[in-house]
Amino acid sequence: MIERFKQHIDKFTKITEEEFSEILSFFDEQEVKKKENLLMEGAVCRYHYFVLNGCLRKFFVNEKGVEQTTEFAIETWWMTDNFAYERREATPFYIQAVENSWVLGIDYASQEALVAAHPKMERYFRFVYQRAFAASQMRIKYLYELSKEEMFHHFNEHYPDFVQRIPQYLMASFLGFTPEYLSEIRKKIRS
Amino acid sequence: MIERFKQHIDKFTKITEEEFSEILSFFDEQEVKKKENLLMEGAVCRYHYFVLNGCLRKFFVNEKGVEQTTEFAIETWWMTDNFAYERREATPFYIQAVENSWVLGIDYASQEALVAAHPKMERYFRFVYQRAFAASQMRIKYLYELSKEEMFHHFNEHYPDFVQRIPQYLMASFLGFTPEYLSEIRKKIRS
Repeated sequence: MIERFKQHIDKFTKITEEEFSEILSFFDEQEVKKKENLLMEGAVCRYHYFVLNGCLRKFFVNEKGVEQTTEFAIETWWMTDNFAYERREATPFYIQAVENSWVLGIDYASQEALVAAHPKMERYFRFVYQRAFAASQMRIKYLYELSKEEMFHHFNEHYPDFVQRIPQYLMASFLGFTPEYLSEIRKKIRS
Repeated sequence: MIERFKQHIDKFTKITEEEFSEILSFFDEQEVKKKENLLMEGAVCRYHYFVLNGCLRKFFVNEKGVEQTTEFAIETWWMTDNFAYERREATPFYIQAVENSWVLGIDYASQEALVAAHPKMERYFRFVYQRAFAASQMRIKYLYELSKEEMFHHFNEHYPDFVQRIPQYLMASFLGFTPEYLSEIRKKIRS
């Protein structure tokens, strides 16, 4: 499973097996059970997570007390509250496992030490953030442009495996629907 | 004015004057007049812009034909459609000068050549994208959490100079208001 991380690094910069084992020494491998929290609101955000297997989600609890999911991360995706992570500050977010998952975690000081010791990882993280930022800019465009229902159709069309995999009540939370409304839209698509 | 770019790089990684002049050779400096477009919908997105002086905005034209502003960039901020830039694809966005501006532009091949020749710039861009992504994640949280009026109050409180500087009709376009409604909110704040 750990090979997934090497393959992901190799997409952006080639590393040897020896370099990979040195790089891995900066990380902690961690198993996380479904619904277990890796981060909770008010805690200092210490770790940046790479998903080896499984699925995480990030959410905050809005003023009505409702969980609002803002992001998912499946295999080879990274997840943290980047703002709080860089500042080692308290976060307004939760990070929770959607499925039983295996993750790699790295704290900010270790990530900085890693890129200093392995400049190839500077390149790797540059690409990781570059692509994450690009995706996030498109997401903002969609948030302005599409209705909630159009957003669901967009995700369904572009990421069908992802939509199938995420439990319906979490997909609803991500889109700002009630689960009942999402269920109706899905029925419409089938008929 | 060009010193602004060196100071910005120095925030993340120290470079010599000699390195800086080599780095600059990868860029084109460009003056852009107020309301002039640096990028138009349907064109291939070739350049990544660094604002030396002035202000840019990014917008798309929605299906009602209305300009929807999604981003601003003032001094030391970068701007492009990152998705289309990396793929050298046609963009759905416009980039337009809000004020007479001076920018540095770099195409994707040159940016890749730059980071290969100057690994310190790999570090610089890693930080630029890391912070841009972090800001963008917070922005997504606010888009879920805040009403348009609350979003205005948030910007007004956290970035008062920015809100003063941006023409009211563009601030309205950014927030998804009519200019008349924004004007009313501003009156309420003053009274």
